[in-house]
Amino acid sequence: MHIDHIGIAVKNIQEAAQVYELLGLEVKNIEEVPSQKVRVAMLPLGESKIELLEPTDPESPIQKFMDKKGSGIHHLAVAVDDVAAELEKLKKEGVRLINEEPVPGAGGALIAFVHPKETQGVLLELCQHK
Amino acid sequence: MHIDHIGIAVKNIQEAAQVYELLGLEVKNIEEVPSQKVRVAMLPLGESKIELLEPTDPESPIQKFMDKKGSGIHHLAVAVDDVAAELEKLKKEGVRLINEEPVPGAGGALIAFVHPKETQGVLLELCQHK
Repeated sequence: MHIDHIGIAVKNIQEAAQVYELLGLEVKNIEEVPSQKVRVAMLPLGESKIELLEPTDPESPIQKFMDKKGSGIHHLAVAVDDVAAELEKLKKEGVRLINEEPVPGAGGALIAFVHPKETQGVLLELCQHK
Repeated sequence: MHIDHIGIAVKNIQEAAQVYELLGLEVKNIEEVPSQKVRVAMLPLGESKIELLEPTDPESPIQKFMDKKGSGIHHLAVAVDDVAAELEKLKKEGVRLINEEPVPGAGGALIAFVHPKETQGVLLELCQHK
């Protein structure tokens, strides 16, 4: 188990990437995710990645997050071997989930979000890569 | 270079740790940091750690953060080999810093924070372990 990525809501990927690039990180991939109305840039960092999320539409959930809280860290994603099994464990303990079942994420991953009320405000993603 | 830790502002370490413990993580260490007026719990996660920060005083910077923004992710710390060298690189490029020079952090680390205006709202810590 490890940190898969840190999702950061940004106004502009190129501008937001500059500090990380000065530290030696590189934008390896930019992908449009129409279902979420965002462009997503991945900057590998050890076994993890920094994920910059730029809205492509005022109705994007990321734009709505920024309207409310400003740009900044949006979610923490933990890589697990079996999202469905982790969700079962959490459900048995009465942990509230945003996704009761895994849903498709970027890059063919299976993902699910735990409800922020269970984590004192952290939007926690569980993420299973193929 | 890798993610050293994710700092999370919480009201109560024991309650906040529960979800992570269900996922198999363990609180390895709880330390009081009087200078920051916080108790700090570390939960190792791959090459990184989740750091739960609980204020011990209403005047704690973490309490003030929570008064304004609620509990949740507070900062992202990246492990680097040489904080002073990274700060020099950033200063040369005109990047604003909270700490122009490294300061002592928890566990004998040398740390420095980049100004959130340079990162679109992310409180970014550079962290050098001995």
